[in-house]
Amino acid sequence: MAEEVSNKPVLLKNYVTGYPKEITGTEQRTMAEEVSNKQVLLKNYVTGYPKESDMEIIASSMKLKIPEGTQDEVLFKNLYLSCDPCMPGMTAYAGFYEVCSPKKGEYVYVSAASGAVGQIVGQLAKLLGCYVVGSAGSKDKADLLKNKFGFDEAFNYKEEPDLDAALKKVRMLNMRIRGRIAVCGMISQYNLDKPEGVHNLTSIIGKRVRMEGFLAGDFYHLYPKFLEMVIPYIKQGKIEYVEDVAEGLENGPTSLVGLFTDRNVGKQLVVVARE
Amino acid sequence: MAEEVSNKPVLLKNYVTGYPKEITGTEQRTMAEEVSNKQVLLKNYVTGYPKESDMEIIASSMKLKIPEGTQDEVLFKNLYLSCDPCMPGMTAYAGFYEVCSPKKGEYVYVSAASGAVGQIVGQLAKLLGCYVVGSAGSKDKADLLKNKFGFDEAFNYKEEPDLDAALKKVRMLNMRIRGRIAVCGMISQYNLDKPEGVHNLTSIIGKRVRMEGFLAGDFYHLYPKFLEMVIPYIKQGKIEYVEDVAEGLENGPTSLVGLFTDRNVGKQLVVVARE
Repeated sequence: MAEEVSNKPVLLKNYVTGYPKEITGTEQRTMAEEVSNKQVLLKNYVTGYPKESDMEIIASSMKLKIPEGTQDEVLFKNLYLSCDPCMPGMTAYAGFYEVCSPKKGEYVYVSAASGAVGQIVGQLAKLLGCYVVGSAGSKDKADLLKNKFGFDEAFNYKEEPDLDAALKKVRMLNMRIRGRIAVCGMISQYNLDKPEGVHNLTSIIGKRVRMEGFLAGDFYHLYPKFLEMVIPYIKQGKIEYVEDVAEGLENGPTSLVGLFTDRNVGKQLVVVARE
Repeated sequence: MAEEVSNKPVLLKNYVTGYPKEITGTEQRTMAEEVSNKQVLLKNYVTGYPKESDMEIIASSMKLKIPEGTQDEVLFKNLYLSCDPCMPGMTAYAGFYEVCSPKKGEYVYVSAASGAVGQIVGQLAKLLGCYVVGSAGSKDKADLLKNKFGFDEAFNYKEEPDLDAALKKVRMLNMRIRGRIAVCGMISQYNLDKPEGVHNLTSIIGKRVRMEGFLAGDFYHLYPKFLEMVIPYIKQGKIEYVEDVAEGLENGPTSLVGLFTDRNVGKQLVVVARE
């Protein structure tokens, strides 16, 4: 009876996205069985950016069984893992509508625009009637912004003639009067011993710029409102979505590391099981 | 009739504070007369911080006469000049009440706290029932904050053991959740070729900090409300005010330069004429 199966349930130390799928029929009959259990473990405390060599994949076995004496619990099979704890759609919605209070005709600049959040911000801004400029870290990504997501302008900040100065200037010196900056993510700063500085901050005075950090979770009460807006747009093809999907938990470490080196395009997911 | 008098009217290229004083009686009778006119002129375009040697004081003569054919104009005698264009009381009021929306019991940190704006912000915050910490650039100024203006705590940022790191950390890393930062002034950055960076900006995300630049002039419609609040406080001695008053236009250059080297305490004024 101790049949080895390959559906790879994992101890969910990571944040889970997607709806849990009910386990029925044949699968239920084997639920108390011992299955192989792959896990991604950190070998050591990581300083600086994580490397693939910081992680290892180990296999053990576990019982597919709800602990004795518990009530109202279910076992579920997870199909996808997210490499980061972000709710990109909700983050885009909250940051754009709630933090920035945008108006039709305004100019919107999105950094990391091909990322999971950025691509939605840009499309929400276009749907509202804004002029939208995005930047990303490669020509392909910049092309995607214009051709797939309908940004008005897009540029690869790595190829700007005056290097990163260009991008820094976009952010502060080119702000309009009463501009709003919604700040989230900043993954490039997560693991630095000495965070990079934001320069030209004095220009927020004369331009009366408001800069505000936010967490999407604070706006969770607006989730129904978000869905009400976004689902019809998705159904009508007015909002496109590009995800980066890696196959198998074995590719988890590579996918995670890729987030810090801007290898991914859109939300980085790992498929841990096919239906 | 070309009597030389020493009341030093100047071509008001600078912003003027204080109420104009009507010129009456004996003075009116000499109004068409030629008087000596001292001016502070810049010798060259100034890059970096201004030095006293960038300015010169020249004396010429001018007629105390309203140009022919003009109507509804008056000649006035100015007693004080301000070395900067700031309306400190109104800036303090707008930044504290309008930008920060403070609540009783909250913690308030004021940088440049012995300056014209800072000293009022701290006192408004105390009157509202906040816990107020201020920093300034000398022990004397820090003492003034506690002894004269009633700050709960004050420190000289130049004497902190870990130098300016201490101050920088106060600003970002010690912010409370949903803290607000009203940004004005930043005179230390005015003349730098390469503005200093603000580090640890990522902490505004997790702490949902709002940082907002503002100009007091945008809140000018609240000036009557400001006066209604502040005048009784001044009359009751509940708001103290320290000004730095230099005597004579000859001291204008020194006073101006002093603003950039934190020599002044409170609003820097120059008396150009005694009643």
